[in-house]
Amino acid sequence: MMKAARLFLDWYPREGSQLGPREIKGKVAQEGSKFWRNPRVEIVQEPLPRIGPTEVLIKVRACGICGSDVLMAAFDGEGYTRYGYIMGNGVIIGHEFSGEIVEMGRRIDEYQRRIGKEVFKAGTPVTAQCVVNCGLCEKCKEGKFDECWLTEERGFSLDGAMAEYAVADFRHIYSLEDLSEKYSGEELFLAGALIEPLAGVYKALISIAGSLNPGDNAVVIGGGPIGLAGVALLKVIGAATVILFEPSPQRREIAKAVGADYAFDPGKVNLTEVILELTKGIGAKIYFEAAGVAASIGSDIDFLFKAGEAGSKLVLMGHGEENAMICTETLISGYNVVVGSHGHSGVWRNVIRMVATGLIDPRKMITQKITLEEVPEWLTILRSNKEEGKVIVVF
Amino acid sequence: MMKAARLFLDWYPREGSQLGPREIKGKVAQEGSKFWRNPRVEIVQEPLPRIGPTEVLIKVRACGICGSDVLMAAFDGEGYTRYGYIMGNGVIIGHEFSGEIVEMGRRIDEYQRRIGKEVFKAGTPVTAQCVVNCGLCEKCKEGKFDECWLTEERGFSLDGAMAEYAVADFRHIYSLEDLSEKYSGEELFLAGALIEPLAGVYKALISIAGSLNPGDNAVVIGGGPIGLAGVALLKVIGAATVILFEPSPQRREIAKAVGADYAFDPGKVNLTEVILELTKGIGAKIYFEAAGVAASIGSDIDFLFKAGEAGSKLVLMGHGEENAMICTETLISGYNVVVGSHGHSGVWRNVIRMVATGLIDPRKMITQKITLEEVPEWLTILRSNKEEGKVIVVF
Amino acid sequence: MMKAARLFLDWYPREGSQLGPREIKGKVAQEGSKFWRNPRVEIVQEPLPRIGPTEVLIKVRACGICGSDVLMAAFDGEGYTRYGYIMGNGVIIGHEFSGEIVEMGRRIDEYQRRIGKEVFKAGTPVTAQCVVNCGLCEKCKEGKFDECWLTEERGFSLDGAMAEYAVADFRHIYSLEDLSEKYSGEELFLAGALIEPLAGVYKALISIAGSLNPGDNAVVIGGGPIGLAGVALLKVIGAATVILFEPSPQRREIAKAVGADYAFDPGKVNLTEVILELTKGIGAKIYFEAAGVAASIGSDIDFLFKAGEAGSKLVLMGHGEENAMICTETLISGYNVVVGSHGHSGVWRNVIRMVATGLIDPRKMITQKITLEEVPEWLTILRSNKEEGKVIVVF
Amino acid sequence: MMKAARLFLDWYPREGSQLGPREIKGKVAQEGSKFWRNPRVEIVQEPLPRIGPTEVLIKVRACGICGSDVLMAAFDGEGYTRYGYIMGNGVIIGHEFSGEIVEMGRRIDEYQRRIGKEVFKAGTPVTAQCVVNCGLCEKCKEGKFDECWLTEERGFSLDGAMAEYAVADFRHIYSLEDLSEKYSGEELFLAGALIEPLAGVYKALISIAGSLNPGDNAVVIGGGPIGLAGVALLKVIGAATVILFEPSPQRREIAKAVGADYAFDPGKVNLTEVILELTKGIGAKIYFEAAGVAASIGSDIDFLFKAGEAGSKLVLMGHGEENAMICTETLISGYNVVVGSHGHSGVWRNVIRMVATGLIDPRKMITQKITLEEVPEWLTILRSNKEEGKVIVVF
Repeated sequence: MMKAARLFLDWYPREGSQLGPREIKGKVAQEGSKFWRNPRVEIVQEPLPRIGPTEVLIKVRACGICGSDVLMAAFDGEGYTRYGYIMGNGVIIGHEFSGEIVEMGRRIDEYQRRIGKEVFKAGTPVTAQCVVNCGLCEKCKEGKFDECWLTEERGFSLDGAMAEYAVADFRHIYSLEDLSEKYSGEELFLAGALIEPLAGVYKALISIAGSLNPGDNAVVIGGGPIGLAGVALLKVIGAATVILFEPSPQRREIAKAVGADYAFDPGKVNLTEVILELTKGIGAKIYFEAAGVAASIGSDIDFLFKAGEAGSKLVLMGHGEENAMICTETLISGYNVVVGSHGHSGVWRNVIRMVATGLIDPRKMITQKITLEEVPEWLTILRSNKEEGKVIVVF
Repeated sequence: MMKAARLFLDWYPREGSQLGPREIKGKVAQEGSKFWRNPRVEIVQEPLPRIGPTEVLIKVRACGICGSDVLMAAFDGEGYTRYGYIMGNGVIIGHEFSGEIVEMGRRIDEYQRRIGKEVFKAGTPVTAQCVVNCGLCEKCKEGKFDECWLTEERGFSLDGAMAEYAVADFRHIYSLEDLSEKYSGEELFLAGALIEPLAGVYKALISIAGSLNPGDNAVVIGGGPIGLAGVALLKVIGAATVILFEPSPQRREIAKAVGADYAFDPGKVNLTEVILELTKGIGAKIYFEAAGVAASIGSDIDFLFKAGEAGSKLVLMGHGEENAMICTETLISGYNVVVGSHGHSGVWRNVIRMVATGLIDPRKMITQKITLEEVPEWLTILRSNKEEGKVIVVF
Repeated sequence: MMKAARLFLDWYPREGSQLGPREIKGKVAQEGSKFWRNPRVEIVQEPLPRIGPTEVLIKVRACGICGSDVLMAAFDGEGYTRYGYIMGNGVIIGHEFSGEIVEMGRRIDEYQRRIGKEVFKAGTPVTAQCVVNCGLCEKCKEGKFDECWLTEERGFSLDGAMAEYAVADFRHIYSLEDLSEKYSGEELFLAGALIEPLAGVYKALISIAGSLNPGDNAVVIGGGPIGLAGVALLKVIGAATVILFEPSPQRREIAKAVGADYAFDPGKVNLTEVILELTKGIGAKIYFEAAGVAASIGSDIDFLFKAGEAGSKLVLMGHGEENAMICTETLISGYNVVVGSHGHSGVWRNVIRMVATGLIDPRKMITQKITLEEVPEWLTILRSNKEEGKVIVVF
Repeated sequence: MMKAARLFLDWYPREGSQLGPREIKGKVAQEGSKFWRNPRVEIVQEPLPRIGPTEVLIKVRACGICGSDVLMAAFDGEGYTRYGYIMGNGVIIGHEFSGEIVEMGRRIDEYQRRIGKEVFKAGTPVTAQCVVNCGLCEKCKEGKFDECWLTEERGFSLDGAMAEYAVADFRHIYSLEDLSEKYSGEELFLAGALIEPLAGVYKALISIAGSLNPGDNAVVIGGGPIGLAGVALLKVIGAATVILFEPSPQRREIAKAVGADYAFDPGKVNLTEVILELTKGIGAKIYFEAAGVAASIGSDIDFLFKAGEAGSKLVLMGHGEENAMICTETLISGYNVVVGSHGHSGVWRNVIRMVATGLIDPRKMITQKITLEEVPEWLTILRSNKEEGKVIVVF
């Protein structure tokens, strides 16, 4: 038997909502907040899951709480969940995790014999991506797994890892063996559980936005875990100056620990003035929006695009409730770019190497280690508490 | 003596407008529409210009009327020019031109002896870029001439080519000699005068937006000269399907002649439906906005970004009066990009080779050949007439 | 019952050859020419293959003979096959093919219901990639299927399509439905069978070498099917001038038909002189080596790199028997690049759209249509005949 | 009066050497080692140079000795200089320098008034690029200054900075003002003099080779100043593991100080084994050749390309006496790339920001500070001494 944190929901489509081909009444919705009400997370006792021939059973050792977890469990005035993407009913939440393999499907051994190396075995520390792509659609055929026509998401529409044991297909797991050179015991699993948010930020800044040139400046808006991961990554790829804006003093402290050259409370300084002064008038090459406030900082970005040097990029990762106004004229006159990203496929091994060699130590983002039983409470706390770095369940 | 079309203006700063370091009272303003009133274009008789040691004197043979020329000579209810960028008083307009060298500064010969080839001599057909970069600022040092701190613009703040003779510095001219393989006489100069708008579109779509992959689809909004140049370029770089939207039947006809697979009147079809149907649901990789209507088609683009495949780009080149709302959430979920461009430096030789080898024949865009005397009249006509392709002065 | 062309081999490892983990005595070798002797292709009668739950059975309608097929069936003085890559014994050859689906595995229907569209059904015209990647290794997890640790190849180590029926997994097939707008009947299948070689060339020139800028020049060495596909692709992406070198007059004629601006017999002209003259001294941006003669043209390329403009690329796709000497000093002084490619994953839908919309018509490369029974004879003929374009089996 | 180190040469063309259009008998040769004999460097006393209207006079404060300086002053058995690129007779050597502006040409003030900021004035610390491009040729028009048709080189064909005073045109100097935040006095000028070699390495690895992805591994061959700069840059852009090979223990120590994770004596270890072990079998993404030994390590690179993961790049910057054999088959099967670079235009401000913010501290490479009078002696010493990092003249 094992304990797990499951999310239960009530099916209550908003007026006018129509079921798409990939949605199943009472089971799964593509845009959660249009269908599900009364989210509640419960710690349940249940038998261990069974694995298929290409799957592994993982004893979970650490699992971070993501902003999406908080949003799924939060609700608006009418009781609808606040999370607007794929959500299934009764699913184990949790997708930022690490653990040890305890059992492997029979086809995996056979496969590893054929390739002549045993990458995975009982005891191997691993993490897994939450994008569970179908492998069969036209996008999967092109290797663009984050654009899969039929993506499921571990911890959203499929059982996740906020539980003592989790299951993942062989093609979605990554070995954390290399981390053992710098980390051991629980520390390895703490670092390993945070590969996932780093991978999302890596995909956004490196794969999608095309990085920056070493010696360029960078600005990060928002010092939650995604913003902090952005700070760490931008500094380690050669940004001359990384400037963070974040109201929480605790988060600003972490930002400095992971690489920010400057960290300001946006309520206490003039954002555009500070940036232009610290960058000596040229502005940043990358503005990384990780707070979901693009709508309210749009005119600042517009001003910076105009005042600074040409060819800047606004990289969007934070989900906001309002759309942002982009001044198209400023893009035209300054060759500026606005681009967004959300997935994480294809970059995991590079991120693991960055952590394994110590370039990035994601444990610095952790501010709370909690138990599985405390998860429901922390999901509530985090609705309003915007001071924490990463809150992580340790098993 | 020669004839020239000069633009005269009255200095009348709007309330609150402040002079920047690069503006000169009564002579030049960076944002024309904030300072200049009562624009009038007059055909004047005057002595030929003199050339400096690194300059050439060009006998102009053809000069196109650009949308900017029309805007400079147009005015709003208070009489202010409608053009919002750099404008000088009393300047000869015209920047899309070609002609023959009739005289060369003395340092050019010396220079050509040193390089051991005579690229330019009396009689050489040439065109010139209108970006007259300073060559000394930090951006010029980096070869990014379009981002020059002190750019002047031929035909805007410096004398242009809507005249029987024009002057250009050696470092801003390009030989049209290669065009003589496909074109002769006036035809060569007609094609040569239209290198400039092609160069702007090449810079936007290839250098700044990063092109598309052959076999991707493309959509062009607006069938004026810039949109038509976009159609021609996109087709010749391997777009599978190029779809144009443009109200004018004449322009739609030209679009088909230069490469559009389809051309629709946006008032008569549902833009998003047509695009999704013709692209079999995947949408376009590039949406090229060349009509200045980003504000009004924003929601269509948003819909297409969501319905089509991920990784699309909205490339902005058309100046609009309103800002466009970009749905940031759609950029995040689909890895989509919005980017703008306006310059043309660095791409001229490639564009000339494309015209010289017949890949693009810009003459197909010409709908009116006029005389210099007719310029003032056509500048008025073109304020409301949105049916023409390119109107070009032939000398 | 069906007819098929199977390749039989004798296991006879050369002295010193050691079996790797992925090789199986008497069954499959990674470097064929080190293990296999006495290749013979026989037309056999046998029962139709059975399909698994995610596979389709395809009635083959056309299948091209590739240079690799010729090499597998050819042998050196000691009787060893001339093909140096993966080869299995008793395998049906053929990997450039098209056909119609006649039966689908049961899981495919279920899958298509879930995605809400029926891309494939009985009667759908299809082709399939020959790279049969494992889907499980670290490279497959990154979407880099051509670098799969455990790749099998249809027609090399797995049964191919030189047979009346062939089997392919759902994740390796591509619909040719779009071709029906321009082609019908046999013509559709002829065009469809040649998607595979086009995909290899697309991968090399676009995905790996990074294309060229429109208006750049290109040179192709070798006018066999790969070189001809290179000519067609380079012209359609905006190369100003495409120059082919190929001894066979027939192939030169085809080259002109598919887009070459010039086609020369390299035995009759001075390659470097011709290129420098036709490109007016600047040389080509891409030199596409499709003849396997890099070793013998190395010094010409070196000369061209030096004489022409900087930043040129030598793109290697032709397998040669000797290594080429690259003058590293010329790369340093001219920022030149040498790069190679061989796979074809990830680009199929774009290539199909290019054929479907008529940008490229690969049927122009076909010089012989033959029957399955004639395959063994033509494999022998093609060892010495270097005059044909594509020889294709029609069913 | 000032002291300067001038290089005197005897004009003695090797048999068969022909003068090109840009060479002047007895004055300047494009390939020095084919024309010049008996190089001798002398410390001369002479009047201060005069500046033109767009030039500045710089009081030199530090000037590094580059490998090219050593080669120019070295000679082969027949007395010919060992340097094979542009060389003029009687020129002041030195091109890695920094100093303070002491006088400015009259047009600079006028220019700075127009842009509204005073970037340069008497006392401003500066460095200058050695590429003195013509500004007029077709490549300069495209902003590709390193490919200028008529490049002169400061310290090679024009007077350099191994002197108490040097002259540079306004468009070739860069302010070192930003360095004053981290460095002061002599330290600022030591750091500033080494911007030039860093810029060359930045151009090669970032601009030309296209960088690596953060988390990739990198190998550097050769721990002279160029190799050391490569180590520092690669580490600071996110290479997971940087491995250096260099025989000198002193240089290996410096390598570790500037960022190498490992530094080996290539005579004492098996290069390929070490690399594969430390990279866990995947090899490096970038192999940076900075020792001029591509010819002798060609087969190692070939082995590594084959054994490691696909898509690796060999980046060449070291000038060797022999050409290297590149196994084209390995490039084809592994999508590998060979590319070279030598210039440094366009990247200076980014490099200066990297030094100013402390990302790279080039002073760590300095092993000897000498006086101008010691230059001739050190040029001799450095022919055989391959132990030093950077030897730098302090004024």
